[in-house]
Amino acid sequence: LYRTYGAVPNKEFMFRQLFDNRTYTYTYLLADPDTKEAVLIDPVIELVERDTSLIKDLGLKLLYGINTHVHADHVTGTGELKKRIPGCKSIISEPTAKADIHISHGDIIKFGKYQLECRATPGHTNGCTTYVWHDKNMAFTGDALLIRGCGRTDFQQGCSKTLYESVHGQILSLPENFLLYPAHDYTGQTVTTVAEEKTQNPRLSKDLNQFIKIMDDLKLPYPKEIERALPANMVCGVF
Amino acid sequence: LYRTYGAVPNKEFMFRQLFDNRTYTYTYLLADPDTKEAVLIDPVIELVERDTSLIKDLGLKLLYGINTHVHADHVTGTGELKKRIPGCKSIISEPTAKADIHISHGDIIKFGKYQLECRATPGHTNGCTTYVWHDKNMAFTGDALLIRGCGRTDFQQGCSKTLYESVHGQILSLPENFLLYPAHDYTGQTVTTVAEEKTQNPRLSKDLNQFIKIMDDLKLPYPKEIERALPANMVCGVF
Ligand SMILES: [Fe+2]
Ligand SMILES: [Fe+2]
Repeated sequence: LYRTYGAVPNKEFMFRQLFDNRTYTYTYLLADPDTKEAVLIDPVIELVERDTSLIKDLGLKLLYGINTHVHADHVTGTGELKKRIPGCKSIISEPTAKADIHISHGDIIKFGKYQLECRATPGHTNGCTTYVWHDKNMAFTGDALLIRGCGRTDFQQGCSKTLYESVHGQILSLPENFLLYPAHDYTGQTVTTVAEEKTQNPRLSKDLNQFIKIMDDLKLPYPKEIERALPANMVCGVF
Repeated sequence: LYRTYGAVPNKEFMFRQLFDNRTYTYTYLLADPDTKEAVLIDPVIELVERDTSLIKDLGLKLLYGINTHVHADHVTGTGELKKRIPGCKSIISEPTAKADIHISHGDIIKFGKYQLECRATPGHTNGCTTYVWHDKNMAFTGDALLIRGCGRTDFQQGCSKTLYESVHGQILSLPENFLLYPAHDYTGQTVTTVAEEKTQNPRLSKDLNQFIKIMDDLKLPYPKEIERALPANMVCGVF
């Protein structure tokens, strides 16, 4: 029923999905075309030049560089953005990570006439946050929910039970037509919906015990860039 | 003014952008959720499994595998799609390439309540076609227009003057808020607009003579996969 979604040009809001071919990370630019106020979710440090150039091309004023969590697989661009765009503030939930603003569950981030609701979705890391753009039926799920997958739970305070409860309680409980935009995809997919993941996600459509067993059995390799990424991301990517 | 665009969930139509990390190719799935009829633009042979799995997940009936042109950088998936999805037909403009349907400038491709207008946009190759989804303010430009770039014009019947006239006459003449979806992007960008490319495209915003000089000066390397891709794409990718 609700497995429908799309992209239409719209003078009311601006949205752009950006991809890092090296770390398979998605970055999202959201803006209000009237006030020109914008936010950038999960920028990657090596691509800050591309992102600032696009922001300039579009005549936008970037208010916030927002992190969904302390990434283990790439270095955040929020510190570098702050250097290049005066007034731009960095945002993260994790209280032990350096940032201008530490958000919590229930907080609201405003840009122009729009706002994002912050939902705590721990399980991959303690500080993982999903940002919900209710007006546009979109949610930015970070690594909590990936397309037909989810973030690993075997390091960085990972806990399969917590992740399962976060995803079901805070993400898949959104209306079925909500578009879900992840922090990564390794298969070339760009977006999914609540309806699709409820039925087609091979991990999260299972019950809790099955999910925990699936996650226990993954036996993933240690992430390549974690030694570089974790300390860097605790300080906005800039030492 | 028109530099605004976005993606919204919509029960009226379905749209999904897919990416090939190896050849930097975008594939597009378009469908009418009422009739379930769908088309797939520029599938890649190695990713037909991913694409058919998504089509199945979404409960769609694929009518056509559509090529924007005879690609030199990857092998089309339209032949492989035909094998897996009974009734699915392949489409291309180029008359010397094998396909079920050869379209020409002005032809209409229907799926459910929707239709694509075929616009001849030669210059990168003779048969290059841009498919315009007027209802949704979208155009699929193949290699004629890329984000802040364009297809090369130094082989495969390439001609800079022809390409310039195609892009200005058939693509940038669309309304400024039209979303333009290219066949490739190498920088992680996913979409652009007519307004943006008119002013920000470093090649096509110039006059014809400057454009020809820019293209002449590119001196690009010979494409890696051309020896494999060209003969394969003359027969829908399947020998
Ligand atoms: Fe992560
Ligand atoms: Fe091409």
